[in-house]
Amino acid sequence: MEAWQWSATQALSQIRNGKLTVEDYTRSLLSRIEARDAQVKAWAYLDKELVLSRAKELDQVPFDKRGPIHGLPIGIKDIMLTKDLPTQYNSLLYEASTPINTDAAPVATLRQSGALIFGKLTTTEFATSKQGDWFQNRTRNAHSENHTPGGSSSGSGAATADFQIPIATGTQTGGSIVRPASFNGCYGWKPTWNAISREGLAQWSMTFDTCGFFARSVDDLELMADVFRLHKNQETTPLRMKGAKIAFCKTHNWPKAGNGTRSAMHTALMTLAQHGAEVADLELPQDFAKALDWHAVILASEGKSSFLSHYLTNAEQLHEDIRGYVQGEVSEQDILTAYDGLAALRPHWDLIASQYDVILTPSVPDEAPLGIDKTGDMSFCSMWTALHVPALNIPFHHGSSGLPIGLTLVGARLTDRAVLAKGKILGRILQQLDVENT
Amino acid sequence: MEAWQWSATQALSQIRNGKLTVEDYTRSLLSRIEARDAQVKAWAYLDKELVLSRAKELDQVPFDKRGPIHGLPIGIKDIMLTKDLPTQYNSLLYEASTPINTDAAPVATLRQSGALIFGKLTTTEFATSKQGDWFQNRTRNAHSENHTPGGSSSGSGAATADFQIPIATGTQTGGSIVRPASFNGCYGWKPTWNAISREGLAQWSMTFDTCGFFARSVDDLELMADVFRLHKNQETTPLRMKGAKIAFCKTHNWPKAGNGTRSAMHTALMTLAQHGAEVADLELPQDFAKALDWHAVILASEGKSSFLSHYLTNAEQLHEDIRGYVQGEVSEQDILTAYDGLAALRPHWDLIASQYDVILTPSVPDEAPLGIDKTGDMSFCSMWTALHVPALNIPFHHGSSGLPIGLTLVGARLTDRAVLAKGKILGRILQQLDVENT
Repeated sequence: MEAWQWSATQALSQIRNGKLTVEDYTRSLLSRIEARDAQVKAWAYLDKELVLSRAKELDQVPFDKRGPIHGLPIGIKDIMLTKDLPTQYNSLLYEASTPINTDAAPVATLRQSGALIFGKLTTTEFATSKQGDWFQNRTRNAHSENHTPGGSSSGSGAATADFQIPIATGTQTGGSIVRPASFNGCYGWKPTWNAISREGLAQWSMTFDTCGFFARSVDDLELMADVFRLHKNQETTPLRMKGAKIAFCKTHNWPKAGNGTRSAMHTALMTLAQHGAEVADLELPQDFAKALDWHAVILASEGKSSFLSHYLTNAEQLHEDIRGYVQGEVSEQDILTAYDGLAALRPHWDLIASQYDVILTPSVPDEAPLGIDKTGDMSFCSMWTALHVPALNIPFHHGSSGLPIGLTLVGARLTDRAVLAKGKILGRILQQLDVENT
Repeated sequence: MEAWQWSATQALSQIRNGKLTVEDYTRSLLSRIEARDAQVKAWAYLDKELVLSRAKELDQVPFDKRGPIHGLPIGIKDIMLTKDLPTQYNSLLYEASTPINTDAAPVATLRQSGALIFGKLTTTEFATSKQGDWFQNRTRNAHSENHTPGGSSSGSGAATADFQIPIATGTQTGGSIVRPASFNGCYGWKPTWNAISREGLAQWSMTFDTCGFFARSVDDLELMADVFRLHKNQETTPLRMKGAKIAFCKTHNWPKAGNGTRSAMHTALMTLAQHGAEVADLELPQDFAKALDWHAVILASEGKSSFLSHYLTNAEQLHEDIRGYVQGEVSEQDILTAYDGLAALRPHWDLIASQYDVILTPSVPDEAPLGIDKTGDMSFCSMWTALHVPALNIPFHHGSSGLPIGLTLVGARLTDRAVLAKGKILGRILQQLDVENT
């Protein structure tokens, strides 16, 4: 097994035991990137010499002075400030960007914990829903150069699924973590809103923007939960499948679900029932049908203030949809209705969620659509972002084109630890099934 | 009249008419700073040569290429990134800070609109409630070197009130704009939450942190509302004092009010009644009594994630209260109760506010307390920050030590334009009274 194939947890164990140097691990990942990235195009910025020199520095640190993730390579979505790498947001406004001597808060936390900040991963323009038509290469799906990797965390999803990096950071305002995780076939975790600092990140929506992670194992995501000190004292009773109350939440968006998602859901529920779970449909109260509209209203309203400075700097260099946010007007009554409507749904959802052991919901309508011009539909993700709840894409299925498709495990606010713990068990069961079927 | 005495609106008018160069205006402000700042100590960073050279550049711009606030000097609270000046947060962690080639979003908006980014104004450490005991000079009240200027926007309040700068930026998480505005005797406007982008600002609380402004005239704050495109289409019927429904909202915190605030309130209400207004007490429903506790719970919870990266970088260099946030645990149930409780109060408050033309409330318990170790009590401000509503300190009164004391005009969410328009009229009436009485 090559080092690049390991999960973060596996690689860290080798590094801690002295069986693997950070430099050798880095060289292995660079060889994978060399072999694959001309096709995938996941990296917005990668300085091989710099990352090797940082790896060597990390190897010099005595073992008793090392942080919890010492030597772990992490890719950073290119909307997060990094002190030694440029930050370009896939925007022409930042084409000439240079390193700016400060780290975004999550980058600093990772670096202080020992991570090797490896490089910057592609994003759509300012992490909006638009696939960058600008200077950054258009990223491809990890499994097909003719299909989108999803967005906005395009490079993070593709590079992680493609074994080019064990862990990548992402952000989600609509579906920007869960969607590329589903399309590329890896885990993608959008934590509870505000569990991780957003200082130093591009801003679109204060109400929705959430920092999260991509990985190929839930253990690796739990490492991140440890580093960011998420709800450490949370009680997580182990999930026992026999008698577990499992709900499938189709949401009001279900008519959009294609064959891939319908088949993934059917397969998952059958399998879990075979393991002794009590499976039921969870029908949401009617108020939840408004969540997508409210989400859109707030995106428009908050986009207006968030993108103003870019607009004033050079409106012509912005995607027309971003210009549209700044130029548009949203009625004040609509804004307040959306804020207050979503705020009232949050405790309502938490109460519903507390009645089940596991709630599964679609990640996307179907496998990644053909073409790289669009990043796909975010409508199955947005409500969970708007509700501020943890959402974990579990990769386990494939659609009719053979591309990955996952399902999302959702929970109540602040139950990130429980969602991860349950996701680990579900992932094992469902992925095993997939192996048996293929 | 010296140029430094002018309001922003007055100075801009002179610049537009070609009667004042940006350079001459800058020299006048620098002379005021030279004369006063050894006592007030409002500036964290000011490079006189740099600001003069920028002023000269601005003078070279043809009149038909100038932005709406071309040549307007603005002081920036030292928790906002500035591309040509260091950003230090009054933290030892940033003592060696250098310019980092990027502007925070509000700084970029000001600069693109023609502002002369003048220098950095002192803050408490990371804009928490602690008066910096670190390397930045301790700022004094504009009217007394023995009294606090308030915080966390200490330098912004003191420099604006002291005529060292016409406009300064600030941020408020508890009372960090309204309190120093009241203590120093100038207008301080905390807009509706999220009306202005927070990208590139220090983060404490995503739920409360709000960017706003200090000025000596409401016209100047309306300039800022124009530049930041706040609710431009909002209807603002002119306030007619005769028959106006004016409420005094003591809040559940009223027992903390000292003689200064009691006298300010009494004076204001008597005067407004004499002008024909219908004055009434507004007693808040009991649920609002919980707002301060909920505010504190969220500060503790969000401080935990916001300050984590600083803590990991060097915990010893942080104020013990900031360390305490990271080390502390807040119960998940308390966090959710606070989020949902405040979210439910917001529309409730808007409904109450819609029943009055004007609502006045205390800014602070009293005039600035003696001493510069503490920045004063924020408890009259926090609820309005938590409710996300516009709050405008109106300076017009003096306490028993002769120091300034203001009252706060509050409104419903998104009614910033109306609050400013009404504040202008109230300010004229109340300040005239003060002149007559002294």
